[in-house]
Amino acid sequence: MNASATPVPAESLEATMLRLGRQARAASAVLALASEQSRTRVLVDAARRLRARATDILAANARDLEAADQRGISGAMRDRLLLDEARIEGIALALEQIAALPDPLGRVTEEWTRPNGLVIQRVRVPLGVIGIIYESRPNVTADAGALCLKSGNAVILRGGSESWHSSRAIHACLVAALEHAGLPAESIQMVPTTDRSAVGQLLAGLEGCVDVIVPRGGKSLIARVQQDARVPVIGHLEGLCHVYVHAGADADMARDVVLNSKMRRTGICGAAETLLIDSACAPALLPPIAAALRAAGCALRGDEAACALVADMAPASAADWRTEYLDAILAVRVVDGLDAAIAHIREYGSGHTESIVTGDGAAAERFLGELDSAILLHNASTQFADGGEFGMGAEIGIATGRIHARGPVGVEQLTSFKYVVRGAGQTRP
Amino acid sequence: MNASATPVPAESLEATMLRLGRQARAASAVLALASEQSRTRVLVDAARRLRARATDILAANARDLEAADQRGISGAMRDRLLLDEARIEGIALALEQIAALPDPLGRVTEEWTRPNGLVIQRVRVPLGVIGIIYESRPNVTADAGALCLKSGNAVILRGGSESWHSSRAIHACLVAALEHAGLPAESIQMVPTTDRSAVGQLLAGLEGCVDVIVPRGGKSLIARVQQDARVPVIGHLEGLCHVYVHAGADADMARDVVLNSKMRRTGICGAAETLLIDSACAPALLPPIAAALRAAGCALRGDEAACALVADMAPASAADWRTEYLDAILAVRVVDGLDAAIAHIREYGSGHTESIVTGDGAAAERFLGELDSAILLHNASTQFADGGEFGMGAEIGIATGRIHARGPVGVEQLTSFKYVVRGAGQTRP
Repeated sequence: MNASATPVPAESLEATMLRLGRQARAASAVLALASEQSRTRVLVDAARRLRARATDILAANARDLEAADQRGISGAMRDRLLLDEARIEGIALALEQIAALPDPLGRVTEEWTRPNGLVIQRVRVPLGVIGIIYESRPNVTADAGALCLKSGNAVILRGGSESWHSSRAIHACLVAALEHAGLPAESIQMVPTTDRSAVGQLLAGLEGCVDVIVPRGGKSLIARVQQDARVPVIGHLEGLCHVYVHAGADADMARDVVLNSKMRRTGICGAAETLLIDSACAPALLPPIAAALRAAGCALRGDEAACALVADMAPASAADWRTEYLDAILAVRVVDGLDAAIAHIREYGSGHTESIVTGDGAAAERFLGELDSAILLHNASTQFADGGEFGMGAEIGIATGRIHARGPVGVEQLTSFKYVVRGAGQTRP
Repeated sequence: MNASATPVPAESLEATMLRLGRQARAASAVLALASEQSRTRVLVDAARRLRARATDILAANARDLEAADQRGISGAMRDRLLLDEARIEGIALALEQIAALPDPLGRVTEEWTRPNGLVIQRVRVPLGVIGIIYESRPNVTADAGALCLKSGNAVILRGGSESWHSSRAIHACLVAALEHAGLPAESIQMVPTTDRSAVGQLLAGLEGCVDVIVPRGGKSLIARVQQDARVPVIGHLEGLCHVYVHAGADADMARDVVLNSKMRRTGICGAAETLLIDSACAPALLPPIAAALRAAGCALRGDEAACALVADMAPASAADWRTEYLDAILAVRVVDGLDAAIAHIREYGSGHTESIVTGDGAAAERFLGELDSAILLHNASTQFADGGEFGMGAEIGIATGRIHARGPVGVEQLTSFKYVVRGAGQTRP
């Protein structure tokens, strides 16, 4: 907890959170009927305000960094927390990109006529009120707020306490833009305290005022959310992604896809963590793949067969097949064909993203058909597991659950629907 | 708890339930790849077996009825529990109808090509393992089992203890048909005990082996499920449905739609519970509507204005606007136009189904657009809130939540999807 954050007296926290929930519910009713233009205008205006207030935002960020440094924050966490002019411009651009997305609301996604003449339409509507719980990444404050607003949802944001001042400065731009557009300021609310028990209340649903929780962050955050939430959760636990190099793979393509899947960025959930390679092609293909990975700075941990093919490869333990490194480390296993690869992925995968590299179409179709991860690729990098790469615009995360949303969660996945039925006086026999 | 049910020793209940969960998970992996023909064949075969074993099923039902009578079961509950030859034939027919539905699986529901050449498909897959908790209605054992199997899901059924023997006899037909078709018998499992703590374990998700819970039953069952479930729930709490007779309504159509919405069947969730009628047309339209309702046996409870227009109408209290009667009772309120009707429904409705009767298209569009219930109708009876009437075939219930499914839940709503991406060696820049 950030000692410099404004504390809310403990006895009023519950009341404060309930008020937030009711305000969000009321705002969501207004947002559901607000025009696309007004929702979009807020985002463009907020981007302008972010740029105009960059100095204030950087000053707020400096306060957060100072407190973090005093506490001895890790390098990776500090980097996520750090803002500079370029990053603020990036946040502003992201708001403009979300503004430019097609309106997800109001669309008739299906329509049919019944034999009795009733015309039934399925029409997109917002989900309602979304609670977003995230770690100390100031940019998520803008991204998540914008994605929810674009999809007509009110949102309650609860960011990590380390980014308290930065998030508040960014949030202020969003609120000013909402007010300027005549939309409720409560459309995008921040939990006004870093007290951790506020999270518990948000997860309990604030007496029916929260429709869904979206956690963004590491495994322990998401596990806690899934354990304690009394409302539906859209989240992902792990991205233990596999690349499988089939005997029918082109050597160069296999090398390029493996290298990109692992090393383009190692810290994202779509990064590959395990390479499976067929015993038939491993002697020819694994050494050049390993060389390319090592040249890029990747450590390798192999099973016995892999270690026999590549000099100085560290031996993998059973735990490696279950480890999401999120780092420049790759587990390597030699498998005896497609069935063994599928069996390995079923046993150890997290249902996120897997890719097969092969020129054998039948093998690829079996891989795509028999596995059941959210995203299955043929001859493409696992790093395409991303809402932007799918053409959805920005995403709020990748869902590994099977309910409502699966894979990248963009504005369309933040909607629900209603049925509109038009008749001419029909009664049911 | 039914004393004659086979008890499972308390110390092994947890192990028993976990075994059920693991068996269901394993069966679901087989089902996800089973052909449509094999899933369909099981349902047709099970219908045949139900008819052939009708005598056994009736004997099992007689045991349930005898126990229920000793405990002094209510008339409505006894009727739901009762089987006869005609009802068994109805259950068999329902299985055949579900078998005849189009296969919900494997369909490519969306497909697009990215600028980099990646071709992305969204493909329907089963949800996985569904837990269904229901009251003592033997037919649900067959319906729910069949809907899950048709959609490629394994299911764990937990019916009310009063229908224990009847459900087991019906379940035996399903299992025999599964085995005959070479599909896992564990595709459709019944919790093998009437011990209530089994429900708690099912709701906890059996260590990740249950993907979604579908409760079917009264308010207290569903409230308990929503409170205790650690996995997503698809359910509906209440059907507090409204018919709004707008000033622009045709008199005969208004009478017919109101009468049908209330009285066709009063015990279903799509039955209307409150009539709102415009003050402009109430003097002319309410008396004939009230007369028709009374002639059909409906009691009326009106606000002051309604009572002034219809002789001997009982006065409604504030509680009436919030009451799902599920009986031949209708609350009646005179409102001053569309905005008042919308405000009333927003305040008191349960988000299930509402209908407007009017010849005024603009008023109808505002009603359909501004309200946000799962189903909104114009000039049609609320009793059309039904999967069969929507053309979905059988339904497992009507969802009033906003996540995943909303409105009638048929086989399509019991599916998830995965993304299949085909490339030519693309890597992400």
